[in-house]
Amino acid sequence: MIKRGKFITIEGTEGVGKSTNIEFIKEYLVRQGIPLLLTREPGGTPLAEEIREMLLKRRDEKMDESTELLLIFAARSQHLQQVILPALKGGRWVLSDRFTDATYAYQGGGRGLNISLITDLEERIQGELRPDLTLLLDIDVKLGLERAGRRGELDRFENEQLPFFEKVRKAYLKRIQESPDRCMVIDASPSLRVVQESIKKVLEPKIEEFLAEN
Amino acid sequence: MIKRGKFITIEGTEGVGKSTNIEFIKEYLVRQGIPLLLTREPGGTPLAEEIREMLLKRRDEKMDESTELLLIFAARSQHLQQVILPALKGGRWVLSDRFTDATYAYQGGGRGLNISLITDLEERIQGELRPDLTLLLDIDVKLGLERAGRRGELDRFENEQLPFFEKVRKAYLKRIQESPDRCMVIDASPSLRVVQESIKKVLEPKIEEFLAEN
Repeated sequence: MIKRGKFITIEGTEGVGKSTNIEFIKEYLVRQGIPLLLTREPGGTPLAEEIREMLLKRRDEKMDESTELLLIFAARSQHLQQVILPALKGGRWVLSDRFTDATYAYQGGGRGLNISLITDLEERIQGELRPDLTLLLDIDVKLGLERAGRRGELDRFENEQLPFFEKVRKAYLKRIQESPDRCMVIDASPSLRVVQESIKKVLEPKIEEFLAEN
Repeated sequence: MIKRGKFITIEGTEGVGKSTNIEFIKEYLVRQGIPLLLTREPGGTPLAEEIREMLLKRRDEKMDESTELLLIFAARSQHLQQVILPALKGGRWVLSDRFTDATYAYQGGGRGLNISLITDLEERIQGELRPDLTLLLDIDVKLGLERAGRRGELDRFENEQLPFFEKVRKAYLKRIQESPDRCMVIDASPSLRVVQESIKKVLEPKIEEFLAEN
């Protein structure tokens, strides 16, 4: 019987260095000989990427908050059924740039949507599935926005203001505290070298533990 | 205080003559001096129409049933907040080509999705809002498909087969029976003239009743 793969998610607000650090984590896992699928949310399939485009695009029509939430779970449902679940079942590990913690942070915290609606959808769409490990790259919101702000045209989320991201960060930290077994916070404010040492330090024992499981 | 408008929906499977009969109903209401907004689902706003396109488009990637349902409610949420609720509140009547009964019929009946998921989303997204009047144009599925089948390239729903539409029709009829005060069935198999006489016969007293309300 093939051993089910592990599901690892990376979370964080703007400017935490998510892309660079995901690349680092990917390299680290691949060096351990782990068969890995790298993906992202919203997105991960052609259809889910179309939904992502729809979510990020700035337009004259205001997108209703519930519409935003439902689009995110529509993309997630597609991603899960078409990509994540088959990969895990086939023994591959999945490393995803964001997952449902981001929904609690951005739509729950940032937009102020009713958490029970998110919890309902999470249960309906994911069933029992939760990440096996989540790393939250955490940074002071102002510093993060300074780091992120230099990159071309802003999408519908990047275009939000400081108070929005403060609420997102707060919700991320709350969420992480609620699941201490699954989630770890990495201080993303020091230099990249220091951040990656911290990542390695939390990742190494966790990976060993995963690999030792029957 | 402005009197809240009435919300009328028209339902039916393929080939029941929905477009023609909606035009007839619209003319009838406008002749009574009723301020009317004509709309459709999925759709009704630029963003919701983009979601409609996504739903109808045939593609290589299989769309997961839950994804389909969430996209439909994403479009509905947008349509409600941006168009339907403001119109009703402003005293306009809204005539919609399909609404949530279609979700029970197509996604619940046709796709076999769990009804409780649809009911949950209906309550979350619509709150108390239900149509004030729903006309189901009903026809034998084979006859309907014969009538509809002559129109160009088929979309992702039209491309379904007979057993799918049999399930949709059955679910429509069940749904209508469950809400006899709100819903009326019109036999759509006779000639257009006869169908429109039937429509007028059920519409006339209902409209009078609505107009007489305080």
